[in-house]
Amino acid sequence: MIRPVFDKIAIIGAGLIGSSIALAARDNGAAGKVALFDASEDVRERATRLGLGSVCNTAAEACEGADCIILCVPVGAIGEACETIAPHLKPGAILSDVGSVKEKALAAMQAHCPDGIHLIPGHPIAGTEKSGPESGFATLFKDAWYILTPLPQQEEAYNSALDRLAAFWEMLGSRVEIMEAGRHDRVLAITSHLPHLIAYNIVSTAYDMESVGEGEVVKYSAGGFRDFTRIAASDPTMWRDVFLNNREAVLETLGRFSEDLAALQRAIRWGDGDTLMKEFERARGIRKAIIDAGQDTSDVNFGRNTKRTDK
Amino acid sequence: MIRPVFDKIAIIGAGLIGSSIALAARDNGAAGKVALFDASEDVRERATRLGLGSVCNTAAEACEGADCIILCVPVGAIGEACETIAPHLKPGAILSDVGSVKEKALAAMQAHCPDGIHLIPGHPIAGTEKSGPESGFATLFKDAWYILTPLPQQEEAYNSALDRLAAFWEMLGSRVEIMEAGRHDRVLAITSHLPHLIAYNIVSTAYDMESVGEGEVVKYSAGGFRDFTRIAASDPTMWRDVFLNNREAVLETLGRFSEDLAALQRAIRWGDGDTLMKEFERARGIRKAIIDAGQDTSDVNFGRNTKRTDK
Repeated sequence: MIRPVFDKIAIIGAGLIGSSIALAARDNGAAGKVALFDASEDVRERATRLGLGSVCNTAAEACEGADCIILCVPVGAIGEACETIAPHLKPGAILSDVGSVKEKALAAMQAHCPDGIHLIPGHPIAGTEKSGPESGFATLFKDAWYILTPLPQQEEAYNSALDRLAAFWEMLGSRVEIMEAGRHDRVLAITSHLPHLIAYNIVSTAYDMESVGEGEVVKYSAGGFRDFTRIAASDPTMWRDVFLNNREAVLETLGRFSEDLAALQRAIRWGDGDTLMKEFERARGIRKAIIDAGQDTSDVNFGRNTKRTDK
Repeated sequence: MIRPVFDKIAIIGAGLIGSSIALAARDNGAAGKVALFDASEDVRERATRLGLGSVCNTAAEACEGADCIILCVPVGAIGEACETIAPHLKPGAILSDVGSVKEKALAAMQAHCPDGIHLIPGHPIAGTEKSGPESGFATLFKDAWYILTPLPQQEEAYNSALDRLAAFWEMLGSRVEIMEAGRHDRVLAITSHLPHLIAYNIVSTAYDMESVGEGEVVKYSAGGFRDFTRIAASDPTMWRDVFLNNREAVLETLGRFSEDLAALQRAIRWGDGDTLMKEFERARGIRKAIIDAGQDTSDVNFGRNTKRTDK
């Protein structure tokens, strides 16, 4: 019989990630009991109907006796959530989160985390563009990276807690990686935050074109645009908080992006085909590296709606 | 029994689109005979091995007696291809192309197209990031839009040819749309050309980051970046020609994109969460319109490699 890593976990925030953790923990037997809380009464009711776990009316109740508490709220709400639950944490419990920005999330939790609690921030490199408790599913974390950004140089009990949290995520199917919080934020700025910002922006630009109607944009979206709208459908609150809380790294990568784009713009204006070719061929190399590393086995196939959903 | 629209078609260029037309025409019985030519001997040999149709050693041979000739070469190569085949076209034949830019493609063909040939440019809103004859497949055009940009105010024989070409594409599964060439180029600039340029650019930016290694970019690409690399794996020559030949419309949309991006950059720098929220929520609206219009029924699911390829 599989032995759960934790007797009880508490999930604060029952959105896409929170509800997926609840389902994955249950399906994989990684937690004896799953308690959930969400600040929204409506979400709590939906989570109850969905049978995600033991849905509590207060965060305090959810955290009572929990061995591991995972904050699944937008980065900007982590501090307040932490403050609310701080008095109700069991000594020796693990406090973690799933925020897409780690330095600010860590600082927000450190401001309120009581002594004797093992603070271990985390971030799943997994998600969909959907949000809300209905969007969660048990295999979301399977084969995905899970990054933990533990505090440096801790004592034995902390390291043991870190091992348990890593074991929990591995039971959910994730590949766990340890990284320094600041490094995480720089890596994610280019691999996730900038792509989302760009996707949001191109959708906005399309929306404001007077010369091309929204109907036409929608109708012919299969030429590439559609893939951006999918990314840009992600939760606005979550992403607002990401950009506000990873400002330096995002502005740095965005500055470089704009410089590079200006160079391409100039090449187009002056008909410099060689520069365009050079850049486009380079991009193919990175794509190949991603496929070679087994990080993507899917095909793109624009124009049709059927392929990806074919059974 | 299904009656083919054309007794013989000639496909000049056996890449992704050319090979897919050959396979689709055969599978759907839309052409009695399919002749192919490619300027590359290597591609001709591969096309022969793949059994794509009657592979000819000269363009002249492929075009001999063909009722419809479709140029499936990059936009920048259309003029030369047209010049080569011009003396070998059967009077009354249809000459078409599949270029992503229509005004310049039309001009290139008009410069060489003999009298008595029905010149009807076209463009499938379909594709994948793959290229070469091996990447073609018979259902590529199924349920995809096919845009025809016919010459204005033509005589009866031309209109009849237009009907036949539309019928051919409908037999291949496409939904045919008639559009003015300049309008096509403006619509595609935002729905396809800009998204590809942005995708190429972000991959370049990632490549040049000194603070984040290429290995890390590849490893954590599931956070959004991966979707861009897929688009950026598209054929460099084809896309170079698109940008060089749709310069005005691309520079216009790119200018707007950069302005909008500067506004988001400013909002991030000054911590203006309201502006970010407003823009991000708007993007969701367009995504919803695309789904409501049935233009995309697929899910995004980053972090995992399995879902899209699950059988």
